[in-house]
Amino acid sequence: MHYFFNPQSIAVFGATPKTFKGGYAILRNLISTFQGRIYPVNPQHASIEGIPCFPALADIEGPVDLVILFIAARMVPEALEQCAAKGVRGIMIESGGFAETDDEGRALQRAISEFVRRTGIRVWGPNCMGLVDGIRGHIFSFTDPKVLPSCLLPGPVSLIVQSGMLSAGFVVDILSHGITGFSKICSIGNKADIHESDVLAHLLEDPDTRSVGLYLESFIDGRRFLDLCRNSDKPVVVLKGGKSETGAQAAISHTASLAGNYRVAAGALAHAGVYEAQDFKQLVDFCRTLALHPPRRSRSRGRIAVITFSGASGIVSSDFMEEQGLSVAELSEATKIRLGRLFPQWMPVADPVDIWPAIEQHSGTDLDIYSLALEAVLDDPGVDAVLVHSFSGYTRIRLNLEEMSRQSRASGKPVLLWLLGRHEEVFQARKSARDLGLLVFQELHRAVECLSILFQPSGKLPRFEGAQPVPAPSSTGLSADLSRVLEDAEGPQDEWTSKRILQAFGIPSVEEAVIEDFSRFEGVAARMGFPLVMKGLQPGVVHKTEHGLIVLNIRNPQEAGESFERLMERMNGNGSVLLQKQVQGGVELILGAIRDPQFGPCVMIGVGGVLAHLVADTVFAPAPLGREEALDAIGRLRTPQILDGFRGSEPVDRNVIAAFLVNLGNVMIGCPRIREIDINPVLATGNSAVAVDATVVLGGPISRTDHR
Amino acid sequence: MHYFFNPQSIAVFGATPKTFKGGYAILRNLISTFQGRIYPVNPQHASIEGIPCFPALADIEGPVDLVILFIAARMVPEALEQCAAKGVRGIMIESGGFAETDDEGRALQRAISEFVRRTGIRVWGPNCMGLVDGIRGHIFSFTDPKVLPSCLLPGPVSLIVQSGMLSAGFVVDILSHGITGFSKICSIGNKADIHESDVLAHLLEDPDTRSVGLYLESFIDGRRFLDLCRNSDKPVVVLKGGKSETGAQAAISHTASLAGNYRVAAGALAHAGVYEAQDFKQLVDFCRTLALHPPRRSRSRGRIAVITFSGASGIVSSDFMEEQGLSVAELSEATKIRLGRLFPQWMPVADPVDIWPAIEQHSGTDLDIYSLALEAVLDDPGVDAVLVHSFSGYTRIRLNLEEMSRQSRASGKPVLLWLLGRHEEVFQARKSARDLGLLVFQELHRAVECLSILFQPSGKLPRFEGAQPVPAPSSTGLSADLSRVLEDAEGPQDEWTSKRILQAFGIPSVEEAVIEDFSRFEGVAARMGFPLVMKGLQPGVVHKTEHGLIVLNIRNPQEAGESFERLMERMNGNGSVLLQKQVQGGVELILGAIRDPQFGPCVMIGVGGVLAHLVADTVFAPAPLGREEALDAIGRLRTPQILDGFRGSEPVDRNVIAAFLVNLGNVMIGCPRIREIDINPVLATGNSAVAVDATVVLGGPISRTDHR
Repeated sequence: MHYFFNPQSIAVFGATPKTFKGGYAILRNLISTFQGRIYPVNPQHASIEGIPCFPALADIEGPVDLVILFIAARMVPEALEQCAAKGVRGIMIESGGFAETDDEGRALQRAISEFVRRTGIRVWGPNCMGLVDGIRGHIFSFTDPKVLPSCLLPGPVSLIVQSGMLSAGFVVDILSHGITGFSKICSIGNKADIHESDVLAHLLEDPDTRSVGLYLESFIDGRRFLDLCRNSDKPVVVLKGGKSETGAQAAISHTASLAGNYRVAAGALAHAGVYEAQDFKQLVDFCRTLALHPPRRSRSRGRIAVITFSGASGIVSSDFMEEQGLSVAELSEATKIRLGRLFPQWMPVADPVDIWPAIEQHSGTDLDIYSLALEAVLDDPGVDAVLVHSFSGYTRIRLNLEEMSRQSRASGKPVLLWLLGRHEEVFQARKSARDLGLLVFQELHRAVECLSILFQPSGKLPRFEGAQPVPAPSSTGLSADLSRVLEDAEGPQDEWTSKRILQAFGIPSVEEAVIEDFSRFEGVAARMGFPLVMKGLQPGVVHKTEHGLIVLNIRNPQEAGESFERLMERMNGNGSVLLQKQVQGGVELILGAIRDPQFGPCVMIGVGGVLAHLVADTVFAPAPLGREEALDAIGRLRTPQILDGFRGSEPVDRNVIAAFLVNLGNVMIGCPRIREIDINPVLATGNSAVAVDATVVLGGPISRTDHR
Repeated sequence: MHYFFNPQSIAVFGATPKTFKGGYAILRNLISTFQGRIYPVNPQHASIEGIPCFPALADIEGPVDLVILFIAARMVPEALEQCAAKGVRGIMIESGGFAETDDEGRALQRAISEFVRRTGIRVWGPNCMGLVDGIRGHIFSFTDPKVLPSCLLPGPVSLIVQSGMLSAGFVVDILSHGITGFSKICSIGNKADIHESDVLAHLLEDPDTRSVGLYLESFIDGRRFLDLCRNSDKPVVVLKGGKSETGAQAAISHTASLAGNYRVAAGALAHAGVYEAQDFKQLVDFCRTLALHPPRRSRSRGRIAVITFSGASGIVSSDFMEEQGLSVAELSEATKIRLGRLFPQWMPVADPVDIWPAIEQHSGTDLDIYSLALEAVLDDPGVDAVLVHSFSGYTRIRLNLEEMSRQSRASGKPVLLWLLGRHEEVFQARKSARDLGLLVFQELHRAVECLSILFQPSGKLPRFEGAQPVPAPSSTGLSADLSRVLEDAEGPQDEWTSKRILQAFGIPSVEEAVIEDFSRFEGVAARMGFPLVMKGLQPGVVHKTEHGLIVLNIRNPQEAGESFERLMERMNGNGSVLLQKQVQGGVELILGAIRDPQFGPCVMIGVGGVLAHLVADTVFAPAPLGREEALDAIGRLRTPQILDGFRGSEPVDRNVIAAFLVNLGNVMIGCPRIREIDINPVLATGNSAVAVDATVVLGGPISRTDHR
């Protein structure tokens, strides 16, 4: 990737003299911002902007590190061959007309992939806006030469975006509003070769980048992405476009990408300690916050002191903190006494700290009340961070950004500022704060969201190496019959077969037996005891309830005989009967697994029973996973309290559920022909969890990125 | 209120020559902005700022409509008497030092209330920043004379705020950033006399005000507030401060107000068709949106067309719309053909409409692609509103705000603009848009929230007049015994008594009987049939389960005899036994009622059983209520689908639950000594709903504002 980020020489195909077309813009931007050698390639001109033009790449004498193509899509294959012949190391195709358009475009994009496979030359794009480097000042993009170069500033945040707008208009907005500067801005377009993980790997090693924000509609290699994030201390924030059904449809027609299943992506990202943003400017706000302050990976709520000039905004801050899982710091007595010296006597110091009475009390003096109050609360060991509300452009409120920034650094505690004021003054203050490394926000809720992201309870888990090797199916307790099923069968397997497969990986089922013939009933019933459940097993029938193939609450041999007859009749003799001990009580869960095209095999845990249909509380996590990771996934349920001795029931040992999930992950790894597993319900009580019903779906590989 | 909003003459106590203190600021602001007669009252000066000063109010010759007091709290009582003697009509006390401080301050505030009762003169404040009128240009406030007057602009939004900051620094921020102008900004402070409803009543009649936003920590007369909102077509938006426990604590120490129970307030406000905001700038965004576009009170999701220059922001818009209950409009074939003429051939027109290819296609021509596309989608009858994404300050994107505004007006459909761009250009565009009546947003999510508020499914209900008079307890089926209980008893009543009271108002209970003596068992059991439930009724014991006073699943007379013995033993013979038919199946609900200090009697419906502890899904509504209102409250549950034939169970007739709620409201109105009712669970099946357990809590009045 080095040749993309730090080339010594660049050739541009499609460079043109000054018009509205982008071929001029790329060259103009290079001339203004790149100090290396620049070679326009265009047989129709001798020189452009005073730089000699070359008819073809071969005509250039020295080496060319990077070639930027901005030519019609149909001319790209020939240009690629020129690059291969010249020994170019990196190619950036910024022109569109590929997979985002029609069949012809898709064929041209396939040709690029084929070229990469054949030559090993890396290609960035097509259909992208290339690279902007705020540190080096490079603009390798056809963005308007009159706009971005005038406002580009270095900063600690890097972006990787699957959208040209987010590397052009959007960053101009962020830069010109004084929000933050940038390290690298990478527009990756159609991702024919280089994709988010390639660029992310580079940026995680880039010393100028302190946090990375990504806008993505799809993940090319979800597993690699997760591994990169998990193994780096650098914070990564993702805004995933295409969450809703309509959104996903739009994604297909946009960058020719599959938007994937958002829930899977959300689970996988959380699992890898990736932060999620929902809106564009929020993405940048999260990134600049995490770039300045290392996130606190604590399980306790962050204790935030609030210094305000208005009781109302103190109250609303408290409301937001409650909502965001933070707490308003309870100041120590010593801190309150220290603050009290600034206040009029009638005013007790409360949390949040409304310093307006102190400002009025000392108006006309030289005392800098804000700084004194900030120092006092930062010194309090019960304070993890401070939210300051202030106003810019009112004589009685002193806004001392330098001092605030100095105090924040000295204490090692984040200080975030919600700033109101006159347009021009707020703008100037925001820019100063940016340069001082102080975070300023326009909206109070956003400031609290950013605080919340610094104190998220679930941080990154240590890398799971898959400690014990997953047993291959043949070495487990699988019978020859079941091994054959796993090798050859297609589609959903019946409940009995499904559970036998799961049992081979240590997943316990309810006590049960198959009988083809009622004469075997007595022996089985004597072992299990009443009440019993009978289910008809019929090839290809998954939804037994809808086919009337389940009889509950069988209390005696006579009822059993009648039920057996009825089930066999319904199946026209073509099936067998599964006899189960009827389990009662306990917590109903759904556990399952899928192979996701982007993230590979993933297990799922969800709240079952009535709740499942109302709260849709499910969490996905990539497999295989270890005990810690399984416990982490369980903790990410929205209502994990169902496991904690809910309504007087016995608390469920989470380790038991975790072991169940770990084994489920192992099934997916051990049996690559399993597409899906559905265990619904799992009944959990105290220290046991058993599969009451289960379906395993078999089939050929469907995944393009199942890397295990 | 007229004398506050449009006085002809104003006297100011506490006017001082130029210093940093506010007494000068009030006078300075009056001189700059008020055209009527101004009388400074200050015995220590002959004139201030060239205006003659008066030693006392009596020394002024002509009439004085409004007096503004900005003097030490302890001097206020004497000044009030001067006002009464002079025949002043309105008094605005802007100084602090009252109930927000200490005992002395609280006593002084009580003296103000006493003065109002005695004289009938209305008092605004104390501890407030008075009134700012953007239409007349009046500033009756001690806000900094160098700041607000220079940026005050007329506009359609009025604010009523229980916080000085929100009428000073905050509005300066909003005004100077070009967000909106204001009609009236009313800082009501401690609300010793005039409170939110008094001011709201005035503003709902004010022709210059098209929407009203309120920041409130408490409601003085919740019922009047609700009635005002419900009976006006003018949109009202409330930001309620003090939602969380910590927030509410802060509220107590701030404006000496009770923050109340947020859930009750939220239910009551929704019931009256009031919109809720969560953040300060969001409050203003909702208000300016509703001021420009009458909200659509439709039960269908608003169909929003999106015109964008970026696929990514189209996709994220779709995601937000899904989340906010809106839908991306499906454009008609005719509209797609019309748009298609602008597009290159390879590009099919999709929803959202990404017009970038069309802009590129026609770059260098005179075609205004945005306007043409906007016209096409506005003409589509399947489009209710349009969200436009644009960029300011890039040559290829034409930003024609006049045309956008004209098209929106001509079509009668809202057009909202998410605008990116360079700081100065965005600022200028925002101001132009404001003057053109076009809504511009910086954050995409906020734009979609504002669209969502225009299409909220539940609008205002017609006023409920309480059609049939609620029967007094004596005229109902209440026995003399129960009437006596209702008159004299205190605290929680036992289950049997509680249900008898409810039954008198038509609330059905499960079949049950009380026996003191097991000899009566046979007759009762013969009527009910097994299985049965037995509960021990013991005076003062509410939580029967915890005291082991409930026996379930009694299957035969022998078990019944044993259970009876055991219960009587546990109660030491001091109690009786309630015998109930054991009801099974159906949906578990919790219904109840409370008397809220701010909103009076309110009923509640919530999801019961296991779910209650997990999802906390409850809705409050003020009583009495009619069938339509009860159905509306039921519809506001987050998971109302539990009533709709959930998991194969029989759907519950919502009319039955509504009747239950209506009757529950009537109990609260008919029995003013009832403080609380808790019916948990109510079992609902098909067309029946019965109280299985219930507690009625009696006691003296606790409410200061129970106006029925």
